[in-house]
Amino acid sequence: MTPVIDLNADLGEGFGRWRLTEDEHLLSVVTSANVACGFHAGDAATMRRVCDLAVERGVRIGAQVSYRDLAGFGRRAMDVPAAELAAEVAYQIGALEVFARAAGAGVAYVKPHGALYNRIVHDEEQAGAVVDGVLLAGGLPVLGLPGSRFLEVAAKAGLPVVAEAFADRAYTDEGTLVPRAREGAVVTDPSAVVERSLGIARDAEVTSLDGRRVAVQARSLCLHGDTPGAVELARRVRARLLESGIRVAAFA
Amino acid sequence: MTPVIDLNADLGEGFGRWRLTEDEHLLSVVTSANVACGFHAGDAATMRRVCDLAVERGVRIGAQVSYRDLAGFGRRAMDVPAAELAAEVAYQIGALEVFARAAGAGVAYVKPHGALYNRIVHDEEQAGAVVDGVLLAGGLPVLGLPGSRFLEVAAKAGLPVVAEAFADRAYTDEGTLVPRAREGAVVTDPSAVVERSLGIARDAEVTSLDGRRVAVQARSLCLHGDTPGAVELARRVRARLLESGIRVAAFA
Amino acid sequence: MTPVIDLNADLGEGFGRWRLTEDEHLLSVVTSANVACGFHAGDAATMRRVCDLAVERGVRIGAQVSYRDLAGFGRRAMDVPAAELAAEVAYQIGALEVFARAAGAGVAYVKPHGALYNRIVHDEEQAGAVVDGVLLAGGLPVLGLPGSRFLEVAAKAGLPVVAEAFADRAYTDEGTLVPRAREGAVVTDPSAVVERSLGIARDAEVTSLDGRRVAVQARSLCLHGDTPGAVELARRVRARLLESGIRVAAFA
Amino acid sequence: MTPVIDLNADLGEGFGRWRLTEDEHLLSVVTSANVACGFHAGDAATMRRVCDLAVERGVRIGAQVSYRDLAGFGRRAMDVPAAELAAEVAYQIGALEVFARAAGAGVAYVKPHGALYNRIVHDEEQAGAVVDGVLLAGGLPVLGLPGSRFLEVAAKAGLPVVAEAFADRAYTDEGTLVPRAREGAVVTDPSAVVERSLGIARDAEVTSLDGRRVAVQARSLCLHGDTPGAVELARRVRARLLESGIRVAAFA
Repeated sequence: MTPVIDLNADLGEGFGRWRLTEDEHLLSVVTSANVACGFHAGDAATMRRVCDLAVERGVRIGAQVSYRDLAGFGRRAMDVPAAELAAEVAYQIGALEVFARAAGAGVAYVKPHGALYNRIVHDEEQAGAVVDGVLLAGGLPVLGLPGSRFLEVAAKAGLPVVAEAFADRAYTDEGTLVPRAREGAVVTDPSAVVERSLGIARDAEVTSLDGRRVAVQARSLCLHGDTPGAVELARRVRARLLESGIRVAAFA
Repeated sequence: MTPVIDLNADLGEGFGRWRLTEDEHLLSVVTSANVACGFHAGDAATMRRVCDLAVERGVRIGAQVSYRDLAGFGRRAMDVPAAELAAEVAYQIGALEVFARAAGAGVAYVKPHGALYNRIVHDEEQAGAVVDGVLLAGGLPVLGLPGSRFLEVAAKAGLPVVAEAFADRAYTDEGTLVPRAREGAVVTDPSAVVERSLGIARDAEVTSLDGRRVAVQARSLCLHGDTPGAVELARRVRARLLESGIRVAAFA
Repeated sequence: MTPVIDLNADLGEGFGRWRLTEDEHLLSVVTSANVACGFHAGDAATMRRVCDLAVERGVRIGAQVSYRDLAGFGRRAMDVPAAELAAEVAYQIGALEVFARAAGAGVAYVKPHGALYNRIVHDEEQAGAVVDGVLLAGGLPVLGLPGSRFLEVAAKAGLPVVAEAFADRAYTDEGTLVPRAREGAVVTDPSAVVERSLGIARDAEVTSLDGRRVAVQARSLCLHGDTPGAVELARRVRARLLESGIRVAAFA
Repeated sequence: MTPVIDLNADLGEGFGRWRLTEDEHLLSVVTSANVACGFHAGDAATMRRVCDLAVERGVRIGAQVSYRDLAGFGRRAMDVPAAELAAEVAYQIGALEVFARAAGAGVAYVKPHGALYNRIVHDEEQAGAVVDGVLLAGGLPVLGLPGSRFLEVAAKAGLPVVAEAFADRAYTDEGTLVPRAREGAVVTDPSAVVERSLGIARDAEVTSLDGRRVAVQARSLCLHGDTPGAVELARRVRARLLESGIRVAAFA
């Protein structure tokens, strides 16, 4: 059986006059686009443009939902009461749906962003609030960290869950991510990132920070698009996967 | 044939800690709720609550779309480029749709708010942008001022258009609204407002500022809910219409 | 020696079209006005008006600094990096200073608001960031909870610190506030609030939730202005203090 | 007498995660920095950093005040009531003052941004509101377009006024700017921009779009920093002025 992997990246993360991600180039590489919905980034006109382009390129559209925090780019954890958070998640999905539909598709999945993504790895209340928000919006597959409370709560609620892995992040021997604060947490060598991508996609394995081979089950691989050289690296990852006989395809 | 009129009012115009309209009481009076969608007022949790209540009371849900202007409550005209404005209108409709649908209904119409409402009476470019936004969101009936560029452009684009009248605003002999700056522009006597409501609903007529009877075709009557005594006045209007044999019902 | 107490309250907590506090009435009762600076509430025109009124009534002006969170009214704790938080605190003080000075006075002190106030009772990093922000703005007295990390760090940095007490909050036997989640945390009986105010101002004592008399050293008493009856209660507190021979005067 | 010219540019026009202008490089070229104050761009931490750098390099700090419009980058004209606009202008100046002072300087002048800059060329009410805001903040020199209502009203109010010119904009035979919509409105050839800069600084003259020499009195030259090659062009302009014996120095 041919192994298959999805490539996802954050897109549309500009706001008004500001641009961050090279949306057009990334959309030629990824199979799933996590589109910012206006709370940490992403104005309406950008959302529309990214959805149009995504559909044109056959890329799946996902709602990248966030805390309401433009000034902090959604990277600051916030104690948002559950009912507010659920409503805010649904609001963002609904707003994006209009552009996804106008482009001839629909929102295919939901992926939390930044501090919210990190918080619901452990925070059961907020994980539940995000799931409530997704249900409020009609129910959609969710993309997240394997082993997170978020995916657990989502699965329990009947939502399809999709696990993702990071080729540019170090893993512990237990198969969890090395916290960013620790030395070596981020893999910066492009060639290493490419090979780790292949290891994850083909063998469901990655070499831990301490040198062990650990299992990493992931149906999607998260690529980053906001650093210099990111697009080029994403292209190399995709090329390496394809030449190794991996099928690169969206999960939904 | 029994005359029929819709009663619409702006609802959910709080934001976070702030409240403005007495949503619960107004929802017992009106047949159409213009729900604020987050750009001039209306946080996600409030939008959800208002939609739930509206459906419970059998009130139609409309998207009250606005310029992005929380600080000015959408009351300051803005030179927003057409493509941005269209996308922002669609964004707001989509966000509300998720709550309307979760409540068991859907967004039934669109009514622009404040400065945007006033601007597109004359401004063809922005009128067109709002219509584009409504089309982007799938197409919905629009509620507005009879004779406005907005309704003209919307009709030309194939959208159902619904004209509204104001029982608490003075009319000119030509049947247009007396500008707010002019003396006597606002009718403040509650009994006069009640009688003018009846005149509009039953006879399609109103007495102008200069004392003439002028024709006012309107399928909906706009009630205000943000002043002291507003809810009580709205109740009196509704009661007077009903006791006079007018049918009070949504238009959509 | 006549005991002396300052009465402080949050003011100017509207935003644009929304009002919350009865600024005009409260300014006849308090001696210190904690003026919202635009981050959780408080637009520029409101800040100007409150400063003008405060100076007219001889009320001291303080900067009520907050997390940047209009949607949550500054009531949601946020993991803001220290350097950002310090700059944001300074920004708010500077903005208010311009109106305080235009009114003929100046910002006389700083009091953190809501979730920030609560967080820096224990969070040393954010407490330090707020102090850095105050120093960046030139250095001012700070108003806060006795025993908090905030007042400790501020004192160490050489800032004058002023302790405040709450007549409508229950105290533990250790003299700390009973957490809001616990039953009985808020004193709702107006007469009890009035008597507790007197106890704090005259005897530096309050009866704990468990019935013990505990010492509460406070140079200022925090009154609330955002609930029905709040202004009337504030008036009663002030009257009771004055008739008991307490001097009501600002601290700065 | 040696001719003297000031070089001003917009700086600190990022927001949170987003950057726009190459602040560090531009601060080695200009003599006056128009620092964004948070309304169209410019978060508190960025304002602080730009002020520190400006003082380090001996660059004068100005408040670049704007409509409150992050989503539109202050480029959309808004009908803001005069009292609100005046207060908002003062708020921005006050916020920047705190960082300018912490850096060892102070805000030395005020320059309106984007749509506000353009609007007050003709709009007397808003021009007056901006002047009121500057007066509210204590009174400062203002930088603007010669012949504009803004500079007229400011001068009448007793504020020092400073005229600026644009080397990359075409002029009419009357010495006014060619509207951006007209062909040829922007001078894109770098060498032409350099020579026009010299013509303005040395001879107070510029060649109009129709080929005539027209007088342009300007104490400051506005350089742009938000396009590719902008910094390099700014360096060339400065070098050309210096080698031609022009003194490059701030006006205040």
